[in-house]
Amino acid sequence: MLVATRNPLNIGAAARAASNFGFTSFGVVNPYEVAFREAKSAMGAAALLASAREYSSVAEGVADCSLVVGTTAAERRELQLPLRRLEYGARLIRSAMGAGRAALLFGSEKTGLSNEDMSHCNWLMRIPVRPEHASMNLGQAVAVALYEIVRDPRAAAKVPAPLKPAAAGELDRLTGRLLEILEACGYVEARTAGSTKQKVRRMVRRLGLPARDTEIWLGMLRQILWGLGHSGNRPDRE
Amino acid sequence: MLVATRNPLNIGAAARAASNFGFTSFGVVNPYEVAFREAKSAMGAAALLASAREYSSVAEGVADCSLVVGTTAAERRELQLPLRRLEYGARLIRSAMGAGRAALLFGSEKTGLSNEDMSHCNWLMRIPVRPEHASMNLGQAVAVALYEIVRDPRAAAKVPAPLKPAAAGELDRLTGRLLEILEACGYVEARTAGSTKQKVRRMVRRLGLPARDTEIWLGMLRQILWGLGHSGNRPDRE
Repeated sequence: MLVATRNPLNIGAAARAASNFGFTSFGVVNPYEVAFREAKSAMGAAALLASAREYSSVAEGVADCSLVVGTTAAERRELQLPLRRLEYGARLIRSAMGAGRAALLFGSEKTGLSNEDMSHCNWLMRIPVRPEHASMNLGQAVAVALYEIVRDPRAAAKVPAPLKPAAAGELDRLTGRLLEILEACGYVEARTAGSTKQKVRRMVRRLGLPARDTEIWLGMLRQILWGLGHSGNRPDRE
Repeated sequence: MLVATRNPLNIGAAARAASNFGFTSFGVVNPYEVAFREAKSAMGAAALLASAREYSSVAEGVADCSLVVGTTAAERRELQLPLRRLEYGARLIRSAMGAGRAALLFGSEKTGLSNEDMSHCNWLMRIPVRPEHASMNLGQAVAVALYEIVRDPRAAAKVPAPLKPAAAGELDRLTGRLLEILEACGYVEARTAGSTKQKVRRMVRRLGLPARDTEIWLGMLRQILWGLGHSGNRPDRE
């Protein structure tokens, strides 16, 4: 919920982020610019913006919410409200959303939430920014906070299936063809041929080639070999 | 790094998010509007924007990076590049930043990164948005991606110290004074006085009062009791 927002573009941007992350309820309290519903910055979120509820006070806006969380850029000890980092606070909000409605309040661009606004909050939340530059753009702050609420911790741990790696036999074919080329162009010296072969074999293995790329590399090498004049026929392109 | 960005306001917003989250290097490739350095949307990040490097190609921009990650809104199977969710991809980027420079590419507002741009990438990353509305505002996408890179997973698990709860003796004083009031105003009926007292005692405990609030509540109750005409002297305000 946006409180006393000045710039309608920020209202549109906040609605767009809410839509991106699948939030279906959006409210504004006393916006400075009443024509906010036409904000072009709501690209793709026109429906959400059109359905946004407009309130004349924070109390009215949060009346049916069992959790009200205010956002703030800086620690403000005089408020005597618990201040939680986004990573932890978002977890509490997720839990609360299972039990009832939760409201997340963002204040105006210039001054943030007032002490009066904050007195309606159960606690405050801050985004972990640099203390030297803690003031975020409103639309960006909304996007980051909503992202953290919907982000899936399991997705961070889930390692995607790796590409099928090339089998040793394919790598041997590749190594062999590469060595043919190196011999053809004079890279391999007779005196050190044995160690050169081993070196090339190890280097090809370190490439970590996926199986699907091996045929393409083999084709390229075949063409190079042909270009070096050591293959009878020009191969078809693979 | 922003590639072929059209709107200078988005370049400013991206610089602001980079500054908020403590990133010190910022580059643009072929921006449409060359006067981007004056963008007002870079509030607080003027220094970063002024120091932004401008490149004429992706290859030039990423030349000293050992990891290049492209961002994309949609799955594009024809690219044959691994596509990772932000939660997981950001972890890989964090690791890579320990070993060398990493570049994160964002394409233009209209079309995103081109296939040519993406061919410079090691892999692609997507923000977990709703498939029905996957197109994010550029500045917001940058903010969310950079936040995930700097977010501290331990902060999500760390439960802050709770407020010191009121001791049983303080709660008993409070319960006693509340019951005096309820008796004075006729709420307590003689027939059910015993069960009413127990009920009130349980309800006061369920309030979960912090110690620091108890004295204030006691003062309010004392004043109410005085107002009900059952205390000889008007108490000083506490």
